[in-house]
Amino acid sequence: METNEQIASRAKEQRLRARKGLLRQQTSGLAPGAVQGNVAIMPSQYAADFLRFCQLNPKPCPLLAVGKPGDPILSDLGEVDIRTDVPMYRIFRDGAFVEDVPNIVDAWSSDLVAFVLGCSFSFEEALIQAGVPLRHLEEGRDVSIYRTNQETRSAGVFGGPLVVSMRPFKPKDAIRAIQITTRFPNVHGAPVHLGQPSLIGIDDINKPDWGEVTEINDDEIPLFWACGVTPQAVIERAKLPFFITHKPSHMLITDLANASLASL
Amino acid sequence: METNEQIASRAKEQRLRARKGLLRQQTSGLAPGAVQGNVAIMPSQYAADFLRFCQLNPKPCPLLAVGKPGDPILSDLGEVDIRTDVPMYRIFRDGAFVEDVPNIVDAWSSDLVAFVLGCSFSFEEALIQAGVPLRHLEEGRDVSIYRTNQETRSAGVFGGPLVVSMRPFKPKDAIRAIQITTRFPNVHGAPVHLGQPSLIGIDDINKPDWGEVTEINDDEIPLFWACGVTPQAVIERAKLPFFITHKPSHMLITDLANASLASL
Repeated sequence: METNEQIASRAKEQRLRARKGLLRQQTSGLAPGAVQGNVAIMPSQYAADFLRFCQLNPKPCPLLAVGKPGDPILSDLGEVDIRTDVPMYRIFRDGAFVEDVPNIVDAWSSDLVAFVLGCSFSFEEALIQAGVPLRHLEEGRDVSIYRTNQETRSAGVFGGPLVVSMRPFKPKDAIRAIQITTRFPNVHGAPVHLGQPSLIGIDDINKPDWGEVTEINDDEIPLFWACGVTPQAVIERAKLPFFITHKPSHMLITDLANASLASL
Repeated sequence: METNEQIASRAKEQRLRARKGLLRQQTSGLAPGAVQGNVAIMPSQYAADFLRFCQLNPKPCPLLAVGKPGDPILSDLGEVDIRTDVPMYRIFRDGAFVEDVPNIVDAWSSDLVAFVLGCSFSFEEALIQAGVPLRHLEEGRDVSIYRTNQETRSAGVFGGPLVVSMRPFKPKDAIRAIQITTRFPNVHGAPVHLGQPSLIGIDDINKPDWGEVTEINDDEIPLFWACGVTPQAVIERAKLPFFITHKPSHMLITDLANASLASL
């Protein structure tokens, strides 16, 4: 058994590599046991509405930390400097993608607020540890992600459809997966849907809106989880004059242990 | 909020009515909040094997109490006299049904051992309290029960197929139902299957082996729980020279509170 200190130490090591510009790749599989987070950074005038949006939609937007305006340090997650510790950032102006950059030291200002949200890597680790197989990982693909016809609850400029990720399971494993992810409310929690995709507005399961196709066998059932792409899509839709996110799959590695997020 | 003492007092009242021969009907809905149990009574020479069968198959056979050989009093469940406190008993000889009787004072002997097993009434109460609708109750029907192609783990003379009950839910309610019943391992716990009935050997969902048909709407998914009919079917199959059960749906009402069975 590893201690939480060992997990945090490995997380810090990867974060320092990112800080020095030495880690610019996807973070899946890095610093096992450590919580990885989605990142959203925006001007302070939008922060209160975004916080309220997260509070109204905790399943797609499980908040792990919020910075003070202008303060790039998030000490609750380790010694995180949000300007440098994410492997790759994505900068948007007037709602449109501008560029991917390895740090945002130049783009940072005293007016920005940083948000870190839980991601499904944490519950995927718990599923694998419980012996529940995940096809997209076994096949080395990105998880399948879909826009649904379910509306999030809006707050100020923020609103839009719920986005979900899909993983197929045999029935016994589906039941286990619901039980296990229920224990992790801070990383999306239990699924929001199972079975027929059409009931939540997904017309063609073989055409994900993000990620790659995952095959569903005849003896399997698809489970759908609220996805961290939801807040990203919502921020893009709000067409803020300026905002920054992590580049997809290039997450912030925190000092928190995945196991420490379990509610029971 | 009712206290557990109030629940136990109402249970005792119904049990005393059964003891006096005044309660001979189905017990569904009687003494709300109190645990009701399946009853099996058999010669002591089979008791060790049956205990082992229950230990090997805890989902269909969640043991609430076991009497000492020849002792009809089960004090863990309240002041239960198993010879008189069940509304109606079913007597079998050489594996075949003989008669239904309101008490077994004459049939009792110093060689008999009584078993009480949890039943789904307890988790159905928890589902209703959580606002998860149950169609068979809304329509006043018996739950649909099926023999599966899944074998129980056998012990001595006891073995045979797992028997399951089926309840249909909308996807969101299905997820809630899995979460809620997971909290009640002593009354069958989480479902053993969901989705396609054919995967567990149920060829026609509209032909239950026990109980009545339950309609499944297009936007619903069937969930299958291990059922207390499993041990009854297993005991019948073992063709014991003599055994006694409760008459179906005429359960033992105990002093235990349903809520006290929650594991978390």
